Amino acid sequence: MATLGDIGLAAAINIITAFIFLIAFAILRLQPFNDRVYFPKWYLKGLRTSPATSGAFAGKFVNLDYRSYLRFLNWMPDALKMPELELIDHAGLDSAVYLRIYLLGLKIFIPILFLTWAILVPVNWTNNWLELSKATYSDIDKLSISNIPQGSHRFYAHVVMAYAVTFWTCFALKREYETVAKMRLHFLQSEKRRPDQFTVLVKNVPPDADESVSEAVEHFFLVNHPDHYLTHQVVLNANKLAKLVEEKKSKQNWLVYYQNKYERNQSKRPMMKTGFLGLWGEKVDAIEHNIAEIEKLSNEIAEEKDNVRNNPKSIMPAAFVSFKTRWGAAVCAQTQQARNPTLWLTEWAPEPRDVYWPNLAIPYVSLTVRRLLMSVAFFFLTFFFVIPVAFVQSLANIEGLEKTASFLKPIIEIKPIKAFIQGFLPGIALKIFLILLPTILMIMSKFEGFLSISRLERRSASRYYLFNFFNVFLASVVTGTVLEQLQTFLKKSVNDLPATIGVAIPMKATFFITYIMVDGWSGTAGEILRLKPLIIYHLKNFFLVKTEKDREEAMDPGSIGFNTGEPQIQLYFLIGLIYAVVTPLLTPFILVFFALAYVVYRHQIINVYNQEYESSAAFWPDVHGRIIGALVISQLLLMGLLGTKEAASSTPFLLALPVMTIGFHKYCKGRFEPAFIRNPLQEAMMKDTLERAREPNLNLKGYLDKAYLPPIFKEAESDSEDDDDDDDGDKKWAKDNVLVPTKRQSRRNTPVPSKMSNGSSPNLLEIQEKDRP
Amino acid sequence: MATLGDIGLAAAINIITAFIFLIAFAILRLQPFNDRVYFPKWYLKGLRTSPATSGAFAGKFVNLDYRSYLRFLNWMPDALKMPELELIDHAGLDSAVYLRIYLLGLKIFIPILFLTWAILVPVNWTNNWLELSKATYSDIDKLSISNIPQGSHRFYAHVVMAYAVTFWTCFALKREYETVAKMRLHFLQSEKRRPDQFTVLVKNVPPDADESVSEAVEHFFLVNHPDHYLTHQVVLNANKLAKLVEEKKSKQNWLVYYQNKYERNQSKRPMMKTGFLGLWGEKVDAIEHNIAEIEKLSNEIAEEKDNVRNNPKSIMPAAFVSFKTRWGAAVCAQTQQARNPTLWLTEWAPEPRDVYWPNLAIPYVSLTVRRLLMSVAFFFLTFFFVIPVAFVQSLANIEGLEKTASFLKPIIEIKPIKAFIQGFLPGIALKIFLILLPTILMIMSKFEGFLSISRLERRSASRYYLFNFFNVFLASVVTGTVLEQLQTFLKKSVNDLPATIGVAIPMKATFFITYIMVDGWSGTAGEILRLKPLIIYHLKNFFLVKTEKDREEAMDPGSIGFNTGEPQIQLYFLIGLIYAVVTPLLTPFILVFFALAYVVYRHQIINVYNQEYESSAAFWPDVHGRIIGALVISQLLLMGLLGTKEAASSTPFLLALPVMTIGFHKYCKGRFEPAFIRNPLQEAMMKDTLERAREPNLNLKGYLDKAYLPPIFKEAESDSEDDDDDDDGDKKWAKDNVLVPTKRQSRRNTPVPSKMSNGSSPNLLEIQEKDRP
Repeated sequence: MATLGDIGLAAAINIITAFIFLIAFAILRLQPFNDRVYFPKWYLKGLRTSPATSGAFAGKFVNLDYRSYLRFLNWMPDALKMPELELIDHAGLDSAVYLRIYLLGLKIFIPILFLTWAILVPVNWTNNWLELSKATYSDIDKLSISNIPQGSHRFYAHVVMAYAVTFWTCFALKREYETVAKMRLHFLQSEKRRPDQFTVLVKNVPPDADESVSEAVEHFFLVNHPDHYLTHQVVLNANKLAKLVEEKKSKQNWLVYYQNKYERNQSKRPMMKTGFLGLWGEKVDAIEHNIAEIEKLSNEIAEEKDNVRNNPKSIMPAAFVSFKTRWGAAVCAQTQQARNPTLWLTEWAPEPRDVYWPNLAIPYVSLTVRRLLMSVAFFFLTFFFVIPVAFVQSLANIEGLEKTASFLKPIIEIKPIKAFIQGFLPGIALKIFLILLPTILMIMSKFEGFLSISRLERRSASRYYLFNFFNVFLASVVTGTVLEQLQTFLKKSVNDLPATIGVAIPMKATFFITYIMVDGWSGTAGEILRLKPLIIYHLKNFFLVKTEKDREEAMDPGSIGFNTGEPQIQLYFLIGLIYAVVTPLLTPFILVFFALAYVVYRHQIINVYNQEYESSAAFWPDVHGRIIGALVISQLLLMGLLGTKEAASSTPFLLALPVMTIGFHKYCKGRFEPAFIRNPLQEAMMKDTLERAREPNLNLKGYLDKAYLPPIFKEAESDSEDDDDDDDGDKKWAKDNVLVPTKRQSRRNTPVPSKMSNGSSPNLLEIQEKDRP
Repeated sequence: MATLGDIGLAAAINIITAFIFLIAFAILRLQPFNDRVYFPKWYLKGLRTSPATSGAFAGKFVNLDYRSYLRFLNWMPDALKMPELELIDHAGLDSAVYLRIYLLGLKIFIPILFLTWAILVPVNWTNNWLELSKATYSDIDKLSISNIPQGSHRFYAHVVMAYAVTFWTCFALKREYETVAKMRLHFLQSEKRRPDQFTVLVKNVPPDADESVSEAVEHFFLVNHPDHYLTHQVVLNANKLAKLVEEKKSKQNWLVYYQNKYERNQSKRPMMKTGFLGLWGEKVDAIEHNIAEIEKLSNEIAEEKDNVRNNPKSIMPAAFVSFKTRWGAAVCAQTQQARNPTLWLTEWAPEPRDVYWPNLAIPYVSLTVRRLLMSVAFFFLTFFFVIPVAFVQSLANIEGLEKTASFLKPIIEIKPIKAFIQGFLPGIALKIFLILLPTILMIMSKFEGFLSISRLERRSASRYYLFNFFNVFLASVVTGTVLEQLQTFLKKSVNDLPATIGVAIPMKATFFITYIMVDGWSGTAGEILRLKPLIIYHLKNFFLVKTEKDREEAMDPGSIGFNTGEPQIQLYFLIGLIYAVVTPLLTPFILVFFALAYVVYRHQIINVYNQEYESSAAFWPDVHGRIIGALVISQLLLMGLLGTKEAASSTPFLLALPVMTIGFHKYCKGRFEPAFIRNPLQEAMMKDTLERAREPNLNLKGYLDKAYLPPIFKEAESDSEDDDDDDDGDKKWAKDNVLVPTKRQSRRNTPVPSKMSNGSSPNLLEIQEKDRP
């Protein structure tokens, strides 16, 4: 059992680790040659084109200005300075709302901290149950519920606290849901014209012997939405084209690599082998070979492009249908079109950037089967993942290694190395699996056939959370593999489950405190260092970069990563809520995590991440639901725990809590969730009317014409026409989409305080003014 | 243990009981004075005005034509003769589809009967496990799964049969869902113009300081549906008015009663007391008193009518909004209107007859709370209903009775009477509770705030089914009160539950066979006698009837009673599916029930029941879902049973069954359920276009103007204006709604075979021709 001193030591170590990360970051980010690693967002927004240098040649790579080092923690207040409204402009609503999850953590746990410390700590401390019981115990346990004697009336304090925690959490959740819903509606309304406001995605267009898909779509909507239908864009199967373009890009990279090599050492023309991975085959001149290959691919791309455009087989039975008004699109997206409810399925078109193109042609029956299959697969993945991992572990033992790679034998036989490998190998299969898990979950979601990247990420997130809940949380509380637990639980009564887990909860407090410090504190501090992108950028920079454009492509800003980040935060909500009443000592550690993570991610969102799509905070219902789930779990576990404490008089009072919490959840679902799923007609009509008054002669058809062409198609198009001016369509789209470039200058650090004052209410007119073309 | 002989005896008794009922019915229905009890439907449709008499005076009351008695079972083929399409015309789609539930039972269980008897009966019979085990057993058990030795490989036959049963049931369910969905769409399409096609119910109109509800509604829809909005009707709170009208009706009944009394005995004017229940108070002339009272009430009604119309407080924040086109209504019903998703809630307006008026003004927050409360209440009702019943039982014992009613003492003390009461009293509280249960469940549904009678009935049905499942099915299988079971189950492991119940299943086969015969066979045969309505009609006829109109009101045709009837059928599905593989001997009993009930209810629907509303088979998804539930339960119980039979090699093959069944359910839900919830725009547009072509000058506004006035309001209106011509509005509505009176003559028995041939496809044009005004 860890004492308070042990915890203090662990905390000190982790604080020092975190500080080392932060200082390393502070130094690295000031170096001009790292500028594109730590401030890619500004480059992408076109607000910064090169690191401001201090003049001398060396200054181009190393920052020699000693003063900037003195202010090495300056980025923290800078990150906090940007007001939320400007943050939404800068990084999108998704990112701004994502940060609010951390804030919500602070909002929930700060009052809980004060309340539980003021009431529960004295109640727990002034007992001597642990002394009397003569069990081994630590100071931490003296502060926890374990110190209360069996059947004591003091448990009423915990019951009352459980109510207080529930009410406060629900109150905070409701206020937050309200705010986010308002932000979303406001964002959607104050936004400029966007193609997806007018567009509906139609799936499962029935095949027709006499008409092409395009004709069928046109006729159907001309008949059923005669006053509103404007135009449509059929979905093309450009998967092969995408592959060719990808290949060409890779060849171009190699060409640049060899050209660079040749430039550095002009004495010898670089050679390469044509066979597999360049390991064997005929030796040829690398530069010439690559140029020829690129030529060949360009021709193939042009051919395939024609093919996709003209071959009816490459047209999928789906289309993006655009309407004359937002009202028309809102109506079409929310209603059932055809008699057969599996045909002519309509839904809001995702943002063009958000569409996941390969899934657009999956037929209806297949979807049901796919979802069912993936549910079963996920069940087995969660509860039986240990089996294949153990199998790989049994293969990868010392003896096996010696047999397959006998040349390593002399090295392996050295004692310390052998010990190290033996200790290391069994774990590596598990580690690799855990690293691959988010990717596996993402592939599963893709297989299920969701149509937008945001939906894919949300699905993966909820599965990742479930996996974490069973394999991280439960497996830590009830030791033993999950498989063993499953067997135990199946044999136990339904009634005993909360008790079995509940009893183990107080004993695991020190473990979770350590977990929070290692994973939460040091991990978050490590995130800001961006070690992996840093290394990759410099490698690419050295081998591949020739032009500024190449350098731009070498940047990897990354994104929030909702599918991995959010489940992690949720684990902290879960631990925090469970221990809030049981071991109040844990709450401050959670709070430090939320505070640190908030600052770090705010900095990253402002300076680094480049969100690939904008779902307008569509993920909030998931976040809300999972916190409610954590709350209910914490209540059940507390009931189980008190049940074993012979607190028969106080436990029944807890019964109402989960019922009330679920009722609250249902209320919130009905009250707020529609704002995240459906588009109110009132809103649409308002914007339509405004627009008609402002721009009576708008050419909407021209505006929507190419909005939903697959990106790869646009790329290939511009590629074959004009090799240097890549992403013509994308740029046009970006021009339409992002805010007009501000007059702000490129800056070394985070932006100066915005001209909007921090506290003032959103200055809508100003934004709309800017938006007007 | 019952032997085959015992079962045969029980069957004989029940068959004789059923035959007595049927013969009694055959005699009673031929008597002219019972004509309105057994053929009310034809009177209500206006196709029959008086029983055809055989001339003589006595013939008016007693049927003297001996020939008609010879054909006493003739009604059965008659009931089957009417083709389904005519049945839909005659009694509505709800009734026709309700009959298909019985048909579905036949379709599912006939092939299962052949299959299981051909394969499982020999497999079970040719064993000697029961002989060897020397346990007491009967012939029935020799035919059941109990006769297979532990761990035998013969269990594979049962596993294969379980698959066959599942596949066949799913196949039949899918085909049926498809048919019903098609019938529904076809019915909705081939129907005449109905007010609810154009109308949307808008709830939660936000209060506005400057505008009345009516103005607010008009403005909102003029702005947000400018091309489609036509008119609206605010919802008036007419509950007080309804009470007054009710009171007036009762006084009128008394007036008629006293007038009849006076006519029969003119020597003495009837007197009455004015106090409570006529037990005390001043003695007055009954006829004069009632006339004065009616006068007073008429004035009050007129006053209240004015009040409701003009007092803004009696206007509820809800309205029926009508649109110019079906398309406009379909759009409005399926979309979200306002930014705040709890305001301006829209849904399809139920048929005017189907609206449950008192619930129209319940605010949103209250709804969540009400549903939550009712869920908790239902949980306690299901699992703890034994407690109050036992309490009442403990009060109602002999001693208590003697104390409170001491004058009964001498009678009670007689030995046989005392024994009878002692045996009878404890049961009576339970019986009364069970009789009241559907009413209690209906009140609970009303409290939850559903807006249409059909929704109320569906909700009650699903709760009644759950109650039956726990308190009839489970309580019969695992003996002991449900409360005791609940305790046992909570203490058992999740894994053991199916095994515990599964093991008890084969032993209870004889019990369920008896249950089916008593409740299913005799009960169904008793239904056709209509004993209660028969008695009430003759009482009313004797005391209250003066005019033909009174006689019409004395008829009580009743309706299907979906909320009590459907759960009962579902119990037979459940028993049938569970025993299909375990005890194949039970299946024929189930089949007899389905066949008998089909004929009986078809007869009742044709001749008796008068469905009060038409929901266009909206209940089918519930029916489908519950059968799927029964299928899954049967699979789990079989798994539990085989698990205890040490059939470790065959049991795992069953695991896939529930997963596949649930997958099938999800598929059906996505594929067919939307047809029962939403209205496809294609359909609406088609009807709109047709109508516009046919009747370009239709005055839709006039048509819709008073469609959604509360019925009580219309009644009161016509009442005060013209006392004899009651239900003016209703009649107008009925005229619009029901089919034009056919040229068919009133007949003594069920109708002659229709002019449409039985097998021919629906002759739509003919119907449309008739529908055209």
